[in-house]
Amino acid sequence: MITLASDFGSPYPAAMKGVILSRTETELVDISHDLPRQDPRPAAFWLRETVPYFPPAVHLAVVDPGVGTDRRAIVIRVGDHALVAPDNGLLRPVVRRLAEEADSPVISAYEITVDDPASSTFHGRDVFAPAAAEIHEIGVDRLADLDMLSPIDLTSCVDLSFPEPTIEGEIIHGEVLVVDDFGNVITNVPGELLADAEQATVAGVTVPYVDTFDRVDAGEKLLTVGSHGYVECDVNQGRGDEAFGLAAGDAVRIVVDGTTAPE
Amino acid sequence: MITLASDFGSPYPAAMKGVILSRTETELVDISHDLPRQDPRPAAFWLRETVPYFPPAVHLAVVDPGVGTDRRAIVIRVGDHALVAPDNGLLRPVVRRLAEEADSPVISAYEITVDDPASSTFHGRDVFAPAAAEIHEIGVDRLADLDMLSPIDLTSCVDLSFPEPTIEGEIIHGEVLVVDDFGNVITNVPGELLADAEQATVAGVTVPYVDTFDRVDAGEKLLTVGSHGYVECDVNQGRGDEAFGLAAGDAVRIVVDGTTAPE
Amino acid sequence: MITLASDFGSPYPAAMKGVILSRTETELVDISHDLPRQDPRPAAFWLRETVPYFPPAVHLAVVDPGVGTDRRAIVIRVGDHALVAPDNGLLRPVVRRLAEEADSPVISAYEITVDDPASSTFHGRDVFAPAAAEIHEIGVDRLADLDMLSPIDLTSCVDLSFPEPTIEGEIIHGEVLVVDDFGNVITNVPGELLADAEQATVAGVTVPYVDTFDRVDAGEKLLTVGSHGYVECDVNQGRGDEAFGLAAGDAVRIVVDGTTAPE
Repeated sequence: MITLASDFGSPYPAAMKGVILSRTETELVDISHDLPRQDPRPAAFWLRETVPYFPPAVHLAVVDPGVGTDRRAIVIRVGDHALVAPDNGLLRPVVRRLAEEADSPVISAYEITVDDPASSTFHGRDVFAPAAAEIHEIGVDRLADLDMLSPIDLTSCVDLSFPEPTIEGEIIHGEVLVVDDFGNVITNVPGELLADAEQATVAGVTVPYVDTFDRVDAGEKLLTVGSHGYVECDVNQGRGDEAFGLAAGDAVRIVVDGTTAPE
Repeated sequence: MITLASDFGSPYPAAMKGVILSRTETELVDISHDLPRQDPRPAAFWLRETVPYFPPAVHLAVVDPGVGTDRRAIVIRVGDHALVAPDNGLLRPVVRRLAEEADSPVISAYEITVDDPASSTFHGRDVFAPAAAEIHEIGVDRLADLDMLSPIDLTSCVDLSFPEPTIEGEIIHGEVLVVDDFGNVITNVPGELLADAEQATVAGVTVPYVDTFDRVDAGEKLLTVGSHGYVECDVNQGRGDEAFGLAAGDAVRIVVDGTTAPE
Repeated sequence: MITLASDFGSPYPAAMKGVILSRTETELVDISHDLPRQDPRPAAFWLRETVPYFPPAVHLAVVDPGVGTDRRAIVIRVGDHALVAPDNGLLRPVVRRLAEEADSPVISAYEITVDDPASSTFHGRDVFAPAAAEIHEIGVDRLADLDMLSPIDLTSCVDLSFPEPTIEGEIIHGEVLVVDDFGNVITNVPGELLADAEQATVAGVTVPYVDTFDRVDAGEKLLTVGSHGYVECDVNQGRGDEAFGLAAGDAVRIVVDGTTAPE
């Protein structure tokens, strides 16, 4: 199986699919082609939150503002998964997650070399798709046999880590990691930090901290723990980003002023 | 085969796909992940208009404003199809359609129980996708053998029926069921009701009633019978919703003032 | 394999997929369902730029403003590919490209006849999808055996060619073919015409002519050769269409005032 993720919208992903299917028989599964444009950070977040649900596969990810420059094209193997992407930080967070979830998996990294790609603006089609197809064809445990791959040190690959929140008494200083398609504002604050609070103050407004959207009326603000384990600033049947005035990268200050129930 | 329908946009459906493909080998076909947000009614309409074209399959449908509350998660079997969804009315219209089209098919309903799902906000990933995978793995005729399913009465499942138009002489009182991606305004008025009319008055404007868009000039209003058999208020190469000022749920009054051709 | 391309958005393509999968076992690959609405010209461009990357397949393409009129439904075979579409020019450019790339392939054309299709507004579902499924089922080399197909002359099929630029000294008079999802303005000017120029003037502004986006700062205008070989008017990490004020069909005048390096 080969999964595909990009910020290409439509119809550029089709050229990548054609290139792959011309070189190997496989099932293609789209992760998304609507990742935020030209921004490796949210793409790295979404890869980390989706790829680990898949069975072993080749995962192709292209959000590539540096296409055509000397940024490297890389493959990282983690156990039975192989991830193919530009070396701009896309892969390190998902690689860490996959490594945590497996039992001391083999981890190795390679640089991809394609001589004279047909374009300098669409390496998704001309570099990454051919590499993903060849890797699928030969198998993840035989990467070292591919002429187009040269071993590199994993630590030489660009990293892109997400900030940790800092805590000061009842005040949590966090950051908005991404805003999803629903307008849910996903922070970097782990749900555990709000423990049994019943409400909290964020962006100056005190809102209920609930286990799911429907606990408040339609159109009302809420805090909840999203499906990735982080605190989200949301609106039931509405857009949290607009209601809270928050966007990706914004600092977010949460004051836990609920009562904590004793065990 | 497993089909998927949701209002999740991108990239949340990928987590569902990963969960399914980790548990069963199957072909995944997207029906849509851009169903109108948080609204079971148009989703129920589109499921009814698309699912019956598929060969026997497991159909996963998640538009779920009540996620995390005590609304049930259900499976309904109709012949060789199994449909998996929250119990909010999504399935009853398509179940009726599938039952009409088959020859006294087996119909049965089950509640899904997943102990302690990983999230209370993303049951698509944590409840419905695992259920769809297990159903695909065991086969639609062996639902009763799945521990996660308990038989329930079909009539206990939430229904969501579409209103019928009422007729008063030459006046038809209908309702807009949905507006599609093209801006076509799909009413609940069956095409037969306009018979051989050549024009009709809707929202105060008299427009031609034609068999297809190209019978009027680009930009002009028209009434036609859409591909689902209902009268639509459309604009050739334009948006009917904007031109007629109509939205889903609006009442629509059609006065048939065309001449009826003799047989 | 069957590929699908349309301007149907969502969820209409699902009905086509259901119809196909009810009639034949195959892998479905989406080229795009977000092609510009009701406009065969950009669709013809994108088909030409994507279909040739695929291995032999049945390619279904429906952008069909004349649905329900007497425009024909056609199939064109080029070697091991079969292309199915309304006869409005969608296919001729990709057919030329496929023919150029193959070694004297068999080329033949057929009209599709479906008696009394279920609708006159959705031939994607009622005419083209059944035809694609039957063609896939019988095989591309046995088209002549299908009752629904009658041989026609390829030259009778509507053509839709893209204009060639004209050159007047250092001035190139071109046209915008399409604007892509990124806002990149794709002209009909082949990259070779700018040779080794380092800059050029377009829409009155002199901008660098570079090999890839990242050669200019984020937000800055540039000219480059896109992945299809044509000169594009782009903005690094921004939208070229807005910055240059250019849209599909616009005339574009490029003055090459860079210095040409000697060989």
